[in-house]
Amino acid sequence: MKAVILAAGKGERLEPITHTRPKPFVPILDKPLILRHIEILRKYVSDILVVINSEYKVHFNSIQGVKLVEQINTRGTAAALKSVEKYINDEEFLVIYGDVLFEEDAIKSVMKVEGNTMLSVSVNDPKRYGVVILNSENRLVKIIEKVENPPSNLINAGIYKFTQDIFSYIDKIRPSIRGEYELPDAINMIADKVTVVKYNGIWMDIGRPWDLIDANKIFLEKEESRIFGLVEENVKIKNKVIIEEGAVIKSGTYIEGPAYIGKNSVIGPYAYIRPYTVIGSNVRIGAFNEIKESVIMENTKIPHLSYVGDSVICEDVNFGAGTITANLRFDEKEVKVNIKNERVSSGRKKLGAIVGGHVRTGINVSILPGIKIGAYAWIYPGAVVDRDVNKGEFFYPPYLRRSSST
Amino acid sequence: MKAVILAAGKGERLEPITHTRPKPFVPILDKPLILRHIEILRKYVSDILVVINSEYKVHFNSIQGVKLVEQINTRGTAAALKSVEKYINDEEFLVIYGDVLFEEDAIKSVMKVEGNTMLSVSVNDPKRYGVVILNSENRLVKIIEKVENPPSNLINAGIYKFTQDIFSYIDKIRPSIRGEYELPDAINMIADKVTVVKYNGIWMDIGRPWDLIDANKIFLEKEESRIFGLVEENVKIKNKVIIEEGAVIKSGTYIEGPAYIGKNSVIGPYAYIRPYTVIGSNVRIGAFNEIKESVIMENTKIPHLSYVGDSVICEDVNFGAGTITANLRFDEKEVKVNIKNERVSSGRKKLGAIVGGHVRTGINVSILPGIKIGAYAWIYPGAVVDRDVNKGEFFYPPYLRRSSST
Amino acid sequence: MKAVILAAGKGERLEPITHTRPKPFVPILDKPLILRHIEILRKYVSDILVVINSEYKVHFNSIQGVKLVEQINTRGTAAALKSVEKYINDEEFLVIYGDVLFEEDAIKSVMKVEGNTMLSVSVNDPKRYGVVILNSENRLVKIIEKVENPPSNLINAGIYKFTQDIFSYIDKIRPSIRGEYELPDAINMIADKVTVVKYNGIWMDIGRPWDLIDANKIFLEKEESRIFGLVEENVKIKNKVIIEEGAVIKSGTYIEGPAYIGKNSVIGPYAYIRPYTVIGSNVRIGAFNEIKESVIMENTKIPHLSYVGDSVICEDVNFGAGTITANLRFDEKEVKVNIKNERVSSGRKKLGAIVGGHVRTGINVSILPGIKIGAYAWIYPGAVVDRDVNKGEFFYPPYLRRSSST
Repeated sequence: MKAVILAAGKGERLEPITHTRPKPFVPILDKPLILRHIEILRKYVSDILVVINSEYKVHFNSIQGVKLVEQINTRGTAAALKSVEKYINDEEFLVIYGDVLFEEDAIKSVMKVEGNTMLSVSVNDPKRYGVVILNSENRLVKIIEKVENPPSNLINAGIYKFTQDIFSYIDKIRPSIRGEYELPDAINMIADKVTVVKYNGIWMDIGRPWDLIDANKIFLEKEESRIFGLVEENVKIKNKVIIEEGAVIKSGTYIEGPAYIGKNSVIGPYAYIRPYTVIGSNVRIGAFNEIKESVIMENTKIPHLSYVGDSVICEDVNFGAGTITANLRFDEKEVKVNIKNERVSSGRKKLGAIVGGHVRTGINVSILPGIKIGAYAWIYPGAVVDRDVNKGEFFYPPYLRRSSST
Repeated sequence: MKAVILAAGKGERLEPITHTRPKPFVPILDKPLILRHIEILRKYVSDILVVINSEYKVHFNSIQGVKLVEQINTRGTAAALKSVEKYINDEEFLVIYGDVLFEEDAIKSVMKVEGNTMLSVSVNDPKRYGVVILNSENRLVKIIEKVENPPSNLINAGIYKFTQDIFSYIDKIRPSIRGEYELPDAINMIADKVTVVKYNGIWMDIGRPWDLIDANKIFLEKEESRIFGLVEENVKIKNKVIIEEGAVIKSGTYIEGPAYIGKNSVIGPYAYIRPYTVIGSNVRIGAFNEIKESVIMENTKIPHLSYVGDSVICEDVNFGAGTITANLRFDEKEVKVNIKNERVSSGRKKLGAIVGGHVRTGINVSILPGIKIGAYAWIYPGAVVDRDVNKGEFFYPPYLRRSSST
Repeated sequence: MKAVILAAGKGERLEPITHTRPKPFVPILDKPLILRHIEILRKYVSDILVVINSEYKVHFNSIQGVKLVEQINTRGTAAALKSVEKYINDEEFLVIYGDVLFEEDAIKSVMKVEGNTMLSVSVNDPKRYGVVILNSENRLVKIIEKVENPPSNLINAGIYKFTQDIFSYIDKIRPSIRGEYELPDAINMIADKVTVVKYNGIWMDIGRPWDLIDANKIFLEKEESRIFGLVEENVKIKNKVIIEEGAVIKSGTYIEGPAYIGKNSVIGPYAYIRPYTVIGSNVRIGAFNEIKESVIMENTKIPHLSYVGDSVICEDVNFGAGTITANLRFDEKEVKVNIKNERVSSGRKKLGAIVGGHVRTGINVSILPGIKIGAYAWIYPGAVVDRDVNKGEFFYPPYLRRSSST
C-alpha cells in the first residue's frame, strides 16, 4: 500500500514561521512534523508520496526515500490528491494532511477498517474545522465545513484511507468560495461508503503560530527523561528533562522541566529554563536568560539578559543583549494576534512573540505580546516593537523613522 | 483604662503609599503599624478605640477587638480625640498617634506617671515637629509647632496619658491656620499640669515615603535570625535573615542580610537580596533580580531582570521584565521628591522609586530617582519615567503621547 | 648609559582614553605601559629621562626616580629628543617611544650592537608605519613613512640606541607636512651608520583604542595563573585566571579565563567573566553582568544587569543598571570607528564601546558598536547612543533634545 502526504499548503496562517519553511516542517521536539509522519507511515506502507509546493522544494528534497510530487495549477486538498493519481496502483491508499499532529494509533485505527475510511476526533472548538455527521453504523453522513453552530464536537482529522474510486469523484467537484478544490466535497459524494473511525489519541491541527507551543508541549509530556549531553556541576534540574547528545549545560543553570534541549546546544551559565521550553539543536542560551514555555528553533542565539516567555523563536535568530518579550497584557485579557489580516484572540492570557527565521534584534529591544516579526527582519536597538514587522523590514523606533520596509 | 489611637489622617504626604491604605497600615516587617500598636496597648488597657476616616473603613474593619469611631465634620487631632469623648468613662486614658513608630517602653514610661503625661523624644530635625519646652521639674511649659529655629531637640512624641479634663479644653481651642483643631493647643492650656517623660527608645514619625524604608530597617535590626521557610540547596545566606513560613528560596539565591522574607513568598532562582530588604507575603522575586534596601509589599511580582534599590514598592505591583529603578543622581546630590506640591530633599543620596499599589510596568521600563508612581498606574514598555505619575494614569513615552490621565 | 622615553604625544587617536591620561599610561594588566618600560630599562641604564607634555604633568609626577623633561614649542619626535640634549653626557643612549609595547628582549637586542642601532619588526599592516629598507649587511638604507604600497613588512619599532651625533642631525631637519620634526628624518641622514636589528618578540603600537584590548590580551597570554584574592564557595573558574590581592570573587561567579582581576576589585555574585577580560583595581562588577574580552580600568562600577563585550571602559566609570554595549553589527561587517575625523575600520567583527574616564550612564542605556563616549560625559537613562559623545557632553535621546554639549 502507498501513503500520500498532502504538504503543498502555503501556511500563511502560520507566518512568520512559514516564511522560511513549509508548514509540515514545523519542529516538534526539534524534528520536523513530516518526519514524524513518515516514521509512522513506514510501518504500514511500502511507498510514501508527498504532494508539495515547488516553492519549498529545497526543504522536501532533504527527506530520504519518499516520492515528491509537485502540485500544479489548481488549488486545494482535492487538487493536491489528484496530482498523485498516476502513482497509485493499489486498490487502497492512505492520505494524511501534512500539518496535523497525531500518534501511530491514528493510522492503526484507519488500517483496521476495510474500504474508505476517515478518522474523526472530538475537539473543544469544532467550528474551526469540518464537522463530521455520521449515522448509527458509523457511516459518514456529511462533512460540514467551519459552521458557526456545529452540531457536534466530532471533526474530520485529515487522515483517510481511500479506494481508487475517490479520484473519479474529485473530477466531479467544483471549486469552493475560496477557489479551492476541497477533498471533503469529494468525500461527501461517497459518504455512505465511508466508515468514520473515532480516535481518542493525541491529535492537533497546527493552524496558528501558538499551536506550535502546545504541540511541543503535548509531545514533551510523552517523552521520558534522558540526559545524553554534558551537565556541568552545580546545575539544578527539576522534573523531566531531555538533553540530547552534544548539548552542554553550564554551571548555575536551573532547569524546571518538562524541557527539551536539542543536540549541541549550549545553555548557561546562569540560564533559567522553565517548564515547556523546547530548544532545538545548535542553540545558544547564554547567561542571565530566562525561557518559559517557548519553542526556540535551531541555530538561534539568545546570549545575554533576555526573557522569552510563551513565544516561538524560529531558526538562526540573534537576540541582542537585553531583548525582552512581554507575554501578558496590563489588563490581563487574552492576547490577540493578526492572522491573515484578521485580529484573532489566541485564547491565551500569556502569549509572547512569534519571531521568524534569521531575525536580528538590537540590544534592549522590547517586543509586545502577540507580535509577529517576519523572517530576516532587523529591529533597531532600544525599539519597542508594538506592531507586526514585515519580512525583511528594518524596524525603527517612531522617533527615528516610522519604518523602512525592504 | 482605655486607649485611643488617632488614625483618621489622610496621609497625603505618604502618597502613593496611602492611595490604597491608611497611614497606620503601612507595613513594618509585613505587619501593619497599627497592629503593632494594638499588641502593645493590649498589655496596658482593657479597651482600644480607633478614630478613623470613613474612607478607609474597610481596612480598619479587618482589625479584631477594637472599637472604631469615625471622625466627622471637623479636622485635626483635637477634633479626632473629641470624637471619642462619650466612650471615655475612666478618669485617665491613653492617646497615641497612629502614624508614629515606638516600642513598648514608650507606653510603660507614660503609665508610670500619674495624671496628664506626654512623651518626648530627642530628634535631629526638631523643626519638622512640635518642640517641647519644659521646666526643671519636667512640667510642660509649652509645645511650639514647627518653628525654623527650635530651642531644643526635644519634641512631642504623640503619646499621651490624659485625664478627662482634656475634653473641656479641646472645646475652647480655635482652629489653626490650616483650619485644623490641634491637640497641642489644648495641651498648652493645661501645660502646668502635664508631666513630660523623656524617652530614649525607638521612635519615628513615618511622615514621608522613604521613612518607611528606615522604619523597617530599625525593626529589622531588632529581630533575631529565623528560617521557617524552605531553602533549596546552593543558596548563600550572609548575616541575619528572617524567612517566614511557606516562603521558598530557590537555588542560586544570594541573600546578604539583614533581610526579611514574608510568608509564602518565592525568591529566585538567582535573585540577589541585599541588606535591609524587607519583602512582604506572597511576593514573587524571580530570576536575575537584585533588591537592595527596599520595602516590597504583599502580592507584588518582580519576576525577571530588575534592579530595585532604595525603593518602596506597594502591594500587588507587577514589574515587567527588565524594569529598573535608578537610585543615584549623576551629580550624586541628595535625591529630591515632590511631597504635597513641594519639592523636598529626601536627605538620601540613594533613593529609588515609590510605587503605589496595583501598578503595572511594561518591559524595559526605567524609573528615575525619587519618582512617585500613583496606585493603579500603567507604564508603557520601554518608557523612562522622569516625572511623578498620577493615580490610575497610563504613562507613555514622550514620542508616543505626552500622557493619558484617567 | 641613559635612556630617553619620548612620552609627549597627545594621543588624539586614542581618545577618549587619552582624555584623562597620557598615552604611555594606558594600562596593561592594570599597570601603566610606561612603568613596564621603566622596569625593563632600569636593568640596562643608570638614568631615565622622560620627555613629557606639560598638560599631563600630574600623571608623570607619580613616577619615582625618573627625570621629567617638558617638550616646549616645537612638535614631533625629533623635537622631543632635542629637549633632552643637555642631559645626555655619555657617548651612547637609548631612545624609546612611550606608546609601543615590547618585551625585554627588544632592549637586549639593541644593547648588543655597537653604535647607532634601530629595532625593526615585521608586521601585517606595514603601511601604517615607517617601513625600513636595509642592505644586505643590515645597515639602514632608508625609513619610508606610511606609504600605500610598502616594499616590505619590516618597520621601525621606535626603539633606538643613538650616539650623541644624532643631535646635530636633528638640527638640520625640516618640519614634515604635518608641521612636525620627525626623528626618522634625522636617522635617514645617518642611515649608513645605523645598524638595523630585527626583533621577533612581542611588539605593538597602541595607536587606536581597540589596540588596548589586544595589548592586554597578549600580556595576559604570557602570565601564569595566580589567585591571591578571596574566592567564595561556588565560584567556577576555567582556564588561566589571575586574581590579585584584596580582590573578592563572590558566590556564583563564573570565570572563563584567561582573565585578570585587579587588586581589591569585587566581582559578583553571579557575574560571568569571559576570556580576555582584564579588570583593573578597585573595580566593582556586580550581579548579573557579563564581561567579555574587554579592558575595565580602575575604580569603575558595572553594578547590575550589563553586558560589556569587546570594549574599553576607562577609570571611575559608573554604568547604570541595564547598560548594554552592542558589539556586532546586524550585517556582521567589520565595526568602524571615528579616529581623528576619519571613519576607519577596526578590522574587528566584534567591537563594543570605548568609554572615557568618569562617564556616567543612566539605567537601561544602549551603546552601539564602535561608539566612543568622551570622558566625563553623562548618558540619559534609556538612551540609545548611536553616535560618538563628546567629552563632558550630556547625551539625550533624540525625542528629548538633540544634545547638550558642555
